[in-house]
Formats: sequence, C-alpha cells, structure tokens
Amino acid sequence: MSFEAMWTTLASVGRDGATGGYRRMAWTATDATLREWFVSEAASRGLETAVDRAGNQWAWWGDPDRARSAGRPGVVTGSHLDSVPDGGAFDGPLGVVSAFAAVDQLRAQGFVPSRPIGIVNFTEEEGARFGVACVGSRLITGALSPERALGLVDPDGVSLGEAMVRSGHSLNDVGRDDETVGRIGTFVELHIEQGRALADVDRPVAVGSSIWPHGRWRIELLGEANHAGTTRLVDRRDPMLDLAGVISAARREAQSRGCVATVGKVEVRPNGVNAIPSRVLAWLDARGPDEDEVRRLAAAVGTAGIAQEESFTPSTNFDSELVGRLAEVLDGAPILGTGAGHDAGILASAGTPAAMLFVRNPTGVSHSPAEWAETEDCMAGVAALTTILRDLAT
Amino acid sequence: MSFEAMWTTLASVGRDGATGGYRRMAWTATDATLREWFVSEAASRGLETAVDRAGNQWAWWGDPDRARSAGRPGVVTGSHLDSVPDGGAFDGPLGVVSAFAAVDQLRAQGFVPSRPIGIVNFTEEEGARFGVACVGSRLITGALSPERALGLVDPDGVSLGEAMVRSGHSLNDVGRDDETVGRIGTFVELHIEQGRALADVDRPVAVGSSIWPHGRWRIELLGEANHAGTTRLVDRRDPMLDLAGVISAARREAQSRGCVATVGKVEVRPNGVNAIPSRVLAWLDARGPDEDEVRRLAAAVGTAGIAQEESFTPSTNFDSELVGRLAEVLDGAPILGTGAGHDAGILASAGTPAAMLFVRNPTGVSHSPAEWAETEDCMAGVAALTTILRDLAT
Repeated sequence: MSFEAMWTTLASVGRDGATGGYRRMAWTATDATLREWFVSEAASRGLETAVDRAGNQWAWWGDPDRARSAGRPGVVTGSHLDSVPDGGAFDGPLGVVSAFAAVDQLRAQGFVPSRPIGIVNFTEEEGARFGVACVGSRLITGALSPERALGLVDPDGVSLGEAMVRSGHSLNDVGRDDETVGRIGTFVELHIEQGRALADVDRPVAVGSSIWPHGRWRIELLGEANHAGTTRLVDRRDPMLDLAGVISAARREAQSRGCVATVGKVEVRPNGVNAIPSRVLAWLDARGPDEDEVRRLAAAVGTAGIAQEESFTPSTNFDSELVGRLAEVLDGAPILGTGAGHDAGILASAGTPAAMLFVRNPTGVSHSPAEWAETEDCMAGVAALTTILRDLAT
Repeated sequence: MSFEAMWTTLASVGRDGATGGYRRMAWTATDATLREWFVSEAASRGLETAVDRAGNQWAWWGDPDRARSAGRPGVVTGSHLDSVPDGGAFDGPLGVVSAFAAVDQLRAQGFVPSRPIGIVNFTEEEGARFGVACVGSRLITGALSPERALGLVDPDGVSLGEAMVRSGHSLNDVGRDDETVGRIGTFVELHIEQGRALADVDRPVAVGSSIWPHGRWRIELLGEANHAGTTRLVDRRDPMLDLAGVISAARREAQSRGCVATVGKVEVRPNGVNAIPSRVLAWLDARGPDEDEVRRLAAAVGTAGIAQEESFTPSTNFDSELVGRLAEVLDGAPILGTGAGHDAGILASAGTPAAMLFVRNPTGVSHSPAEWAETEDCMAGVAALTTILRDLAT
C-alpha cells in the first residue's frame, strides 16, 4: 500500500466520532487492530515479523541475526501506534507509516541494503493507559523491571500483565531483551514536530539532537470532608484551595526557571457538588533544558502536599556523530532539541546510536485532534528517511 | 426493634470497608435493601405502608385519609435514607430511625393519637446520584416536573426513569401528588446538626427556623489541548489556570460577602498527565443568609468561564408558629438557621407547616465518614421528637 492508502486505513482506527481525536490505548481491541495492520503491511512486503519480550513488533528486510553475528547490526526505523486520550493522528503512526513507505522507495530505486533494515512498533509509548511512558523500549533495554511494569494498573484497575495476557501475550519471558536490542545498529525515529520551530524557519524536516530532562510527580493534597453548606469557612480544610496553589505555583515556577510545567490530571475525592473534598490528587509534568531547574521547580510546587516522583528522565543527547551525519546527508537540515520523550531517547540512553527526524507541524499543536502536518511535508519526511536509510545501510 | 438494634442493622448497609463511609445512592441495590428495611420496621409495628407518586415511602399509625376528610390531617416525621458518596451514618437515617423509636415510646406511654402519625423516607434527598437534591419531595409538591426529573442522568448515563423502572417502580403516574401532600398536616424532620452551634452552647437538641438560599452553578472553562512538553508557555491556553482562579475567587467572594462557597467537583478533559487540558468543568455551590449576596458571589466567580445555574433555592422560613411551639414544648430549645437544604424546606415552600429538630454534632463534621453524634444526644433527640408528636397529635 502507498503512504496515502496506509494513512487512510489507519484514519478510522480508534477514532472518537465526537471529538475527531484518537483513543489508541495499549493492549486494547483497538491496539490489536493496529498490530494486525502492522503484520499485514510487513507481510505484503515480504518482511519477516517478530514480537520481542516486551510485546514490541518488528519487521525485518534481511536477516538481523546473521548481520549481528557478522558485526553489522541493522538500521532500524519506526515509532509507535498508541495515542494519548483524544490524541492526534500523527504522533507515532507517522513514523511507522513513513518507515514502510521509505522501504517501498528504496525498493523502487532498486536498492539492495548491505545491512538489514528493521521497522518497529513500540508498545505503550505514551503511557496513556498505564501511566509510565515508553514501556516497550524501557523493558527491552532493562530501564524498567518486568516486576514494576507488569504491576502497573490502568484506571479500571487492570494491570499491564493482565492486559497483555488478555491480548494473547505470554508473560513467561517479559523483560530485558539483549537479543532484540543487539539487532539495532542504528535507530532513527521519524516523528511529527511538537512545536513550531520548523514552521518559523520554513523547513519541512529537522534532525533531533536531544531530549530535555522530564519528570512526573503525583502530589497528594489532604483535607477534611465536610458539608458544603454548613461548615464555616474558618473550620474548613479544603484541599481544593491547595490545588489552586499548586496550579498557580507550577506556572510561576516554570516561567521563572525557563521550563514548562503542566497540571493536566486531577482526581478529587469524593467529587460531589455539595461536599468539601477529603483529598485531591494532582499530577505535575515538568521539563526544561536544565535538569537542576526542573528539579527545583518540582520541589517548590510539591511543598503544597505530599509529592511523589513517578518518573524522572535526565537529559538525553542523541549520538552526535549520527546527528551530524543526518544533517549533512539532508543538505544542512536544522538541528532541534525537544521537550517530548521518545523511544529513541530510551535507546540512546541505553547506548544504542539513535537520532530523530522531525516533520514540520504548522501550528505546533500535538496531543490533540487538531494535530496536523501537510501531506507535502510528510512526503518530504519519507524522502529524508529514505535518503538516510540508504546512507546508513550501504 | 429498639433504636440501638435498628442502628446496628443499618450500619452495614452500603458501607465502604476502606473509608468507613456510606454510598447509599437512590434506586440502587443498596437503596432497595434500605427500603425493605423500612417496610419491615413498619410491618413489625403494624403500621400501614404506602409508596407515593415519586417513590417516597410512608408508614402510617392511623388512617391518614379518614383524618384528612375530617379536617385533621396527620403529623408526619422522618427524613431520608440515601447518602452522599462516602457520607456519614447520621445524615438522613437518624431522622427515620428516631421516628420509629418515637412511635415506640408513645405506645409504651399508652398514648393514643387523635391525629394519625406518619413516618416518611424521602428518595434522592442528597442529589448524589442524579444531581438534583430533594427529588422525592420536589416531585410530590410539584416543584419539579416529572419530565425533568425522569430525564436526569447519573454519571453512568442511566436516567432516573430507567433507574426507577429497574427498581420495579412504575412511571405511569410519577409527578405531583396532592393526595399524599394533603395527608401531611404538620411535618417535623429530625436531623443531625451539620455545624457546631449546639456544641458551642452545650445543648443536645435545637429547633430549625430557616434554610439559607442555596445555588449550584456549573462553570465550563475552555482551553486548547496540547502537548505538555513541547508547547511554549506563551502559546498555551490552559483551562487549569482558570480553574485555579475559580477556586480562589469562590473563597475570596464568600469571605467578603458573609457566605460559604465550595468547589467540590471538577472534571478535566482529557485528564492526562502529559496533556494540557482542552476543557475543565467546575461546580460552584454557594449559600448564605442573603440571597442577593449569594447571586453576586456566583456572578463574580462565573465570569471566568461559561456559567450555568443548575439550581437555585431561595431562603426558606419554617412556620413561625410551629417553630415557637416546638421551642416552648422543648423547654426553650435553641433556634437555629442552617445552610443545608432539606425535604422539610421543600414542604415548607409548598405551604405545608414544617419545622426541624437538630441533634448536636460535636465536631460539626457532616457529609463525611467522620460524621458523629453521641448516643446520649440521639436519645435526647428521640425524647424531644416523642414530646413533640405527643403535643401535635393530641
């Protein structure tokens, strides 16, 4: 299938008719449809597919194990197919669809790779269902233990382990997967840009150089449940007031420290119109170029309650030699850092040479039904990826 | 059964083992158990039971229709058995259990009422399931139309009509019920106090004189969904910041206007840790002695978004002659106003002579698992109610 045909096929999967956004949560029926699509696209190109110890899907053009033994491990591209709740069409799928399209272009050019070329679909990249991002890449690199991963629970109380079993994935060997990671000589992930840097410089494609440090904290604000009509203001311990303080402090601290900070998730107990809450949970997401400033921001905001770090990923610099090579092959493409985490960052942290390509996003909007990239820019992305794969697999 | 035995029987119904709070939502399996309990207590005392056109339960000592025809309609007491989510044991049930216990005391005294005595269990008093308080009393007095009531939906999308049908209640004649209301010559509702006025004056029982005006507003705060890591602060339209403003303004306005105001319920969309929300809904509950001040408070807070009034109940003054008589019969019991709505207020607004008795609450905490009244004070409440029924039914 062509890029356009693949895009059209995916367009209806997991789409919410009311909002136009996507709900493609890992290990759901929607996810199963996406995984079947991946296998079918690989099969139609004669690519061998495999599923690793974390459930990530791989499609190979050439034998990755023979190449690995010969000291010339594969060139891998791809991304993920899951989405945030009410997410856009591009974040993730653009990288997977572009990978298949680039293989088609290489074949149309009569190219015969001297290193195998792999395409990957990483599972639970967004962390939208189980709360931890990049579960698939963290598991195979050993950055996340199988015990912790399988015990993660979704909002309905279903654990990742249960969800994987229900989807037909055995839990017997879930965990670090050196064999799979060893097959990756180089990883290049193509992704829609999630800011407006390319729109500002009027270029369709950039090379990613680094990922900002990124932390998530859960802040518990405790109060005393009471009647909304009969409790005097002076007698109240209302944690909703503390929530207001947390939201304001997050913005203020982010501004003064050159970071970004978001309170995007809140849970109120009991959440009744006429009840002063007994407890409010707020989640803080903070990122910035400087790790110390991100940590200071979180410390300042967290003093309002009981703060618990749920994850912290230090700054990730992609392989500088690879980044330079990609920018050169792409005739001096811009080089950008980003505030978003990606599987490419997890692989880079684990020692795999990795880098990214970003495709222009005219509005910068992402994680939203309004996320958008022009078809012309997507095609420029495929062309860039084709050029790079050709260069790296020669 | 004695007061203590009735209390023990109810203690386990709808109790959350983790929090110790009650979840007794109208027209659920838990509610059905409570309704069976009511019928069983009535039957064990030889009281006739009836269900009115709104599903409220009535138990009668004496024939209410013959008395009505004779121009001596009944003396009614009782309250409700439903709760807020994670509510306390006393709010509602204390009035129903005390009613049965008072009938037992009157009989033990050999009293023969010259007017029939009724006990009522009003449905959906809290509005915890369908969002509107005092549905049972509003329906029979005509303050709420059956069309609007039956179309109210719970958080799972189940309408009140569907819930009533599932519970075996026919919808054929739901609505205003003049026959039932005509049976009530006088209504006295006993209720746990929801403040600390009695604790401060060291008295076990007070007479209620009035209910403050009370409004509920839904405030919609719109933003633009976007990525929490890559969207610059200046490019954000984050409705969570508006929520912080709403929460702070509600408290500030309440303080300056002598009212109470609460933001107890919040819904965030999509509620993801790494997504700037597209929309936040906040509910404002505001009450105070002065209606104009309550309305000004809501107008000031609501400017942050799109505010919609969900309900507004003006000030309710209980029958002054009845209030005076009760205070006199109870040897000068204190007279209190309250910020909480009650079925007694709905009946009073509809022209039925009504009043209330409040039983001391040592901490003032209500709508919480920590809600409490001493057994000694509950017994004082039963004694006071017995005295009053004897006085009114002579």
